[in-house]
Amino acid sequence: MASAAVGMPSRLPTAAAAFLLAVTCLLLLGVASADTASPSDASDIKARPNRPRKVIFDHDGGIDDYVTLLLLLSCPERVRVIGITILDADCRAELAWNTTLKLLHTLGHEHVPVAVSSLPAVNPFPDPWRNSVLSVDVLPHINDLTQEDLAPLRLSVPGQELMAQLLLGTFQSASGSRDKSGSRSNGTDGGAAAVADDDDDGEPITVVATGPLSNVAHVLRKHGRAAADRIREVWWMGGAVWVGGNVAFPGHDGSAEWNAFWDPAAVGEVWGWPSVPLVVVPLDATNAVPVTPDLIYRFGRQSRYRYSVLAGTVWSRVVTWVYDRPDEPYYAWDTLTAACVLQPDLCDKLYDVQSYVVVAGASQGRTVPLAPSPEAAAAAAGGGEKGSCVAAAPDVETGMAGRTGVKDGEEGVQSAVEAARMLAEVTGAGAAEATTGGQRPGQQQGEQQQRSGSRGVTVVRHVDAEDFYTFVLNALRL
Amino acid sequence: MASAAVGMPSRLPTAAAAFLLAVTCLLLLGVASADTASPSDASDIKARPNRPRKVIFDHDGGIDDYVTLLLLLSCPERVRVIGITILDADCRAELAWNTTLKLLHTLGHEHVPVAVSSLPAVNPFPDPWRNSVLSVDVLPHINDLTQEDLAPLRLSVPGQELMAQLLLGTFQSASGSRDKSGSRSNGTDGGAAAVADDDDDGEPITVVATGPLSNVAHVLRKHGRAAADRIREVWWMGGAVWVGGNVAFPGHDGSAEWNAFWDPAAVGEVWGWPSVPLVVVPLDATNAVPVTPDLIYRFGRQSRYRYSVLAGTVWSRVVTWVYDRPDEPYYAWDTLTAACVLQPDLCDKLYDVQSYVVVAGASQGRTVPLAPSPEAAAAAAGGGEKGSCVAAAPDVETGMAGRTGVKDGEEGVQSAVEAARMLAEVTGAGAAEATTGGQRPGQQQGEQQQRSGSRGVTVVRHVDAEDFYTFVLNALRL
Repeated sequence: MASAAVGMPSRLPTAAAAFLLAVTCLLLLGVASADTASPSDASDIKARPNRPRKVIFDHDGGIDDYVTLLLLLSCPERVRVIGITILDADCRAELAWNTTLKLLHTLGHEHVPVAVSSLPAVNPFPDPWRNSVLSVDVLPHINDLTQEDLAPLRLSVPGQELMAQLLLGTFQSASGSRDKSGSRSNGTDGGAAAVADDDDDGEPITVVATGPLSNVAHVLRKHGRAAADRIREVWWMGGAVWVGGNVAFPGHDGSAEWNAFWDPAAVGEVWGWPSVPLVVVPLDATNAVPVTPDLIYRFGRQSRYRYSVLAGTVWSRVVTWVYDRPDEPYYAWDTLTAACVLQPDLCDKLYDVQSYVVVAGASQGRTVPLAPSPEAAAAAAGGGEKGSCVAAAPDVETGMAGRTGVKDGEEGVQSAVEAARMLAEVTGAGAAEATTGGQRPGQQQGEQQQRSGSRGVTVVRHVDAEDFYTFVLNALRL
Repeated sequence: MASAAVGMPSRLPTAAAAFLLAVTCLLLLGVASADTASPSDASDIKARPNRPRKVIFDHDGGIDDYVTLLLLLSCPERVRVIGITILDADCRAELAWNTTLKLLHTLGHEHVPVAVSSLPAVNPFPDPWRNSVLSVDVLPHINDLTQEDLAPLRLSVPGQELMAQLLLGTFQSASGSRDKSGSRSNGTDGGAAAVADDDDDGEPITVVATGPLSNVAHVLRKHGRAAADRIREVWWMGGAVWVGGNVAFPGHDGSAEWNAFWDPAAVGEVWGWPSVPLVVVPLDATNAVPVTPDLIYRFGRQSRYRYSVLAGTVWSRVVTWVYDRPDEPYYAWDTLTAACVLQPDLCDKLYDVQSYVVVAGASQGRTVPLAPSPEAAAAAAGGGEKGSCVAAAPDVETGMAGRTGVKDGEEGVQSAVEAARMLAEVTGAGAAEATTGGQRPGQQQGEQQQRSGSRGVTVVRHVDAEDFYTFVLNALRL
């Protein structure tokens, strides 16, 4: 036992590794099917293609983003990460770039192109959160290589352009060479102009966005339907739909979630594209899934798997939040989102709801539903809580916002007033998409300036924490 | 390279491991001899016995304490850790106990007895520092075992009593069995009364104390010369001799170092035993040796060694201090002390100086030298800075104290006034030892109540940071 405790297996030959991955994931599917609740109505989201889904991982370099990356890499027969874009949000982007490249290199995925976006913050994350990435970047597990090893992997294209090229099928590495899996190896853009992607099969691409929506908004603004039509769906960790936000910031009312608050206008822009399927994993769901010390200890029981050691080690960095911020532990935010992408059965409470986004002012970043919460709807109907609900009166539950400035009573009154106005406005929903051509919603005039149009989104309302823990622990036995 | 980056070798068979350890350490000695400066005058401290020195590691569970433990275990032919005592100081002691046991178990040193002391803080460490140990305790590398695995290793004897039994040769495990190295295996006290230690050869024992001095003081107070005569020397990470302290606390003047401030009276008591050799590694030395991101990255280059991976991973937890506390980085405090014990050549600037300790009031925990700083002495003498200096006027350099409340000008005046008084008092130095019999120095009457008597201590004034980094990196290639 002593030797296993710090030992991790060396990387297996590619063929053997692929076989083990396949077996692992088949086992995982069996475990998850047995453990989780029955499928919801959102059958399209849960469709299981026979081939791995193409994914662009659009992250912002926080602690949980790296565990998310491990998870997305852990089941290649379900998800194939075709590119990674990084925003300078919950991180220091240059460090996050390093860390991402090192993780990929360490785990044999160095063919995945990675680029840092140049899009700026509207409301930057707190510096201590941004700084925490350094403690991951220095980990000995991923530093048995030099900066020279990484140099060929550094793209000069900005992240938002990489995303566009991947979506439009115009990205091509300098060499254009491929490894046996069909992925490019040693890909760089080498400063070359983007040309047709000979790996592009026209299959729509899933964007897993675990940071602000700036890159997605940029691509939609710049390339319009050409890009929108190539997006299978956007899975976004962001927003606070029927609960309060987690922003505590001078002048803000606490109703927004941080990824939305970082660039509220970008969220508003994505809301302007109702034809792009959008699944949000908001605080509604993540608030129930803390990263607990017990979870990390459980990774120790499987320390012979290097993905487990890496994930547990990365997450170990944040467990002191149980002391440091007892009222607001570190949640599984981004990783929960990836888990839902990989294993939709985890999300047994999905709701389609019309909503809009506040893009400026004291509530900027707030994602406002035009329907009561599932619990309120169920209580009103006297029955079951599952289902799709559109355009009833909003009743945002204050939750954490109650601790960050939103007063419960005022909120109720404001919501009622807004509800009447929104119910009138909602008939005009979708207009933004038709007219978006470089104009940000926040640039509109008058009353409209403060909010986006409304659109339908699918909300992951709840994930059982233990189901998530079990899934992640199983997936990272690799 | 990718595989090596997260791979660590499994534990070697005992005999092979012992051989490799011996070879490693012989190589280390060669490297260090070539790299470090010439020996100082303190030849006794640098004496190299032919057999490993017996060490009690008396720590307080901070991040650096675990790297220190790794270092002390890394050269068993130079140091044999015969017991570990833990104070509830820069940690949560129960967690620190767990972590220490797990590290020992993981690395095959589970025979080393470990106990937590019941001695309380006078001035507790800040909670965020104390909480940080959780992020080490959860690491997957040391958690491939259950609480049941640890249960037989838990001693019921308090830490201060374990230290006493080890010093007096009365500690015995329940089984009393030994492994081939002569160490006990699966040792517990099982509630049994302490009996004669059949492993006790009468050899004096080195105490490496990297927390407050409460355990050492307790043993000296309770057992007097019987314990004192068994101590070869105490190496203590603590104090701030010719520089300012690192305490920022309401009502304190900032002149003390934290380990001394936690229990100033205990420091005063140890000062009352001038016959017990005391080598302090104060802030004077540690302020020059930060734990830098670059150092941690270098552990990544040797990630095939599990000691390196563990040390780098543990230290990774603190590197964000370069952002969080740019004026006061995380230093190598405790680990530097252990390095000096293992490799005395690192300490080429040792000074013997008379000093006393302020045990109460706004300067409590301050360790006051009765001599000018080496630099001041050298300037006055117009020459070299090495050597032994006793009983000149103190000229405490303010350093960090300048930022924590001590005004340079006032300090200079106070030092001059105190110097005159101390020079008169110093002739009575050592009186405490003769009279100590359960009475704490702080319990004395009148003016004396605020300070201990004076004694001679050996001060490690400076260690070259790069020499330390090189030594630690080499030692932990294991």
